[in-house]
Amino acid sequence: MKKLINDPKNVVAESVDGFGLAHADLVQVHRNPWFVSRAIPKAGKVGLVSGGGSGHEPLHAGFVGLGMLDAAVPGPVFTSPTPDGIIPALQAADSGAGVLQIVKNYTGDVLNFETAAELVQAGGVDVRTVLVNDDVAVEDSLYTAGRRGVAGTVLVEKIAGAAAERGDALDAVAAVAQRVVDNVRSMGVALSACTVPHAGVPSFELAEDEIEIGIGIHGEPGRHRIAMDSADGIADRLLEAVLSDFGAGAPLENALLFVNGMGGTPLSELYIVYRRAAAVLAERGVTVSRSLVGSYVTALEMQGCSITVLRLDAEMTELWDAPVHTAVLRWGM
Amino acid sequence: MKKLINDPKNVVAESVDGFGLAHADLVQVHRNPWFVSRAIPKAGKVGLVSGGGSGHEPLHAGFVGLGMLDAAVPGPVFTSPTPDGIIPALQAADSGAGVLQIVKNYTGDVLNFETAAELVQAGGVDVRTVLVNDDVAVEDSLYTAGRRGVAGTVLVEKIAGAAAERGDALDAVAAVAQRVVDNVRSMGVALSACTVPHAGVPSFELAEDEIEIGIGIHGEPGRHRIAMDSADGIADRLLEAVLSDFGAGAPLENALLFVNGMGGTPLSELYIVYRRAAAVLAERGVTVSRSLVGSYVTALEMQGCSITVLRLDAEMTELWDAPVHTAVLRWGM
Repeated sequence: MKKLINDPKNVVAESVDGFGLAHADLVQVHRNPWFVSRAIPKAGKVGLVSGGGSGHEPLHAGFVGLGMLDAAVPGPVFTSPTPDGIIPALQAADSGAGVLQIVKNYTGDVLNFETAAELVQAGGVDVRTVLVNDDVAVEDSLYTAGRRGVAGTVLVEKIAGAAAERGDALDAVAAVAQRVVDNVRSMGVALSACTVPHAGVPSFELAEDEIEIGIGIHGEPGRHRIAMDSADGIADRLLEAVLSDFGAGAPLENALLFVNGMGGTPLSELYIVYRRAAAVLAERGVTVSRSLVGSYVTALEMQGCSITVLRLDAEMTELWDAPVHTAVLRWGM
Repeated sequence: MKKLINDPKNVVAESVDGFGLAHADLVQVHRNPWFVSRAIPKAGKVGLVSGGGSGHEPLHAGFVGLGMLDAAVPGPVFTSPTPDGIIPALQAADSGAGVLQIVKNYTGDVLNFETAAELVQAGGVDVRTVLVNDDVAVEDSLYTAGRRGVAGTVLVEKIAGAAAERGDALDAVAAVAQRVVDNVRSMGVALSACTVPHAGVPSFELAEDEIEIGIGIHGEPGRHRIAMDSADGIADRLLEAVLSDFGAGAPLENALLFVNGMGGTPLSELYIVYRRAAAVLAERGVTVSRSLVGSYVTALEMQGCSITVLRLDAEMTELWDAPVHTAVLRWGM
């Protein structure tokens, strides 16, 4: 294992510390328990909180700031944060209008965020929860009842964050967050494994000519392993799974196409995948009116990518375009 | 070799195509010869052009847009573009006020950009060149007479781009670009090798417990190989080399600190390196007033990072902060 780390016990603390130093204009880092909050809170708005195991950076701390999250709670690598970290984050995010917590659908996260929410609600704060479960690969998995939450989480955070920032009430923010969840689908592929620092060995093994389709963001099993394929072949498989899952709902006419890197894959390769996915969508009569390409929801140094499609409506598009100022997404100001 | 590519012959074309599709609001992609230009050129300003071998993405196309480059010329992977691609890019970037080309100091790039400049100048366009040579690792190298140009190139492009955007004349834009070059130093480390697609095998080998200090962005040799070290130990070595190189010039009081990923290293590790570098600079009385952390000048999927320090003055700081709207750097608008 070669990583730019010191003691494996300290990777999350030191990384979050460095993040706080680099972005002191945007965020404040709180220690013991650890969470990250907006440096300049905005009073009176619905608070937005997310979090989860570390190792998926820039998710979630990279999305704390104006127009997106008010606080993010990093757990240990690939391990849910406990309620003692989530509770102060929820409290910090509350300024009287209530808090929406955006939780990726993993059993540990769901339990811990739910427990924290109950305790904070007992103190008089209105807390709602939206569960993100955009991964179409598997119905249940190693850490999940139901589908996993993966790259689509960024889109939920951005769009709900814009709704909160413009002053929508808690019901409305929760509703638009749920609408994004209902309209977003993802599927990923791994070309290589990743190594959790304190484990020191890869979480799984892939042969030299083998890839795993439908991989999760913790390296948990996907649909099947196949021989290495071309970028176009891989893009076709991922996109087909995503598109067929949209099924019989509203027609998919206008989409945001998001090609996400898993951490160890260079940006140049993500654009090759994007090119194919965009071409296939065009062939099917889908207008790609918004796009995102980069490593936003990662699995440490895993090589691979995921394709996410969000069925856009006019309001989601407007909220996507609204100003955002975080360490990672920044526009409109 | 497992990469998200199709035919290795087509990696640059397909990646640039995908980039153009994803960012059609920002850039226009020209084919045969290939170059990328601003979708909405601004008339009357000094044109800024850069380019070089591909494999360093998002450099350079990711920095085409308002407040930065007017055109970027991608060569084959790790291979200089030829004058036939550079010439139309220089012509496209010219709107009467002349063009500055920002060239990383590699023998092939220097020759080809110089040849293109002479031909375009013969047509009546004033073309100046600034050579970026920020890598303190080695004096001459595999592809270089003198020092190599590496991550500092992004800072030259941003600051000179802002000067051009505000309407500075060619002399002034060239002067501030040169001032950045004179005040920026970098040094990198590789934890793993990278594989050029058409070669199919890694460019070099590193043992399981070995890293290379002073590596170039094409995997060309650095200063020495050492046993794997901690992130703090590595950061100390890189930063020491950078700081000692500032030598007896103006004191280093105010700096931009840039921790750059080589392509295969996750963002979380870059922040661990940033944390240490920021602490060491603080101990030495250097104020880090601006920062940048991410994979901006890469070497395909190489794992590793570089540390860049730019000695800031008031004008450079103002130009760094000025609005920019490219696929990768975007702020102030």
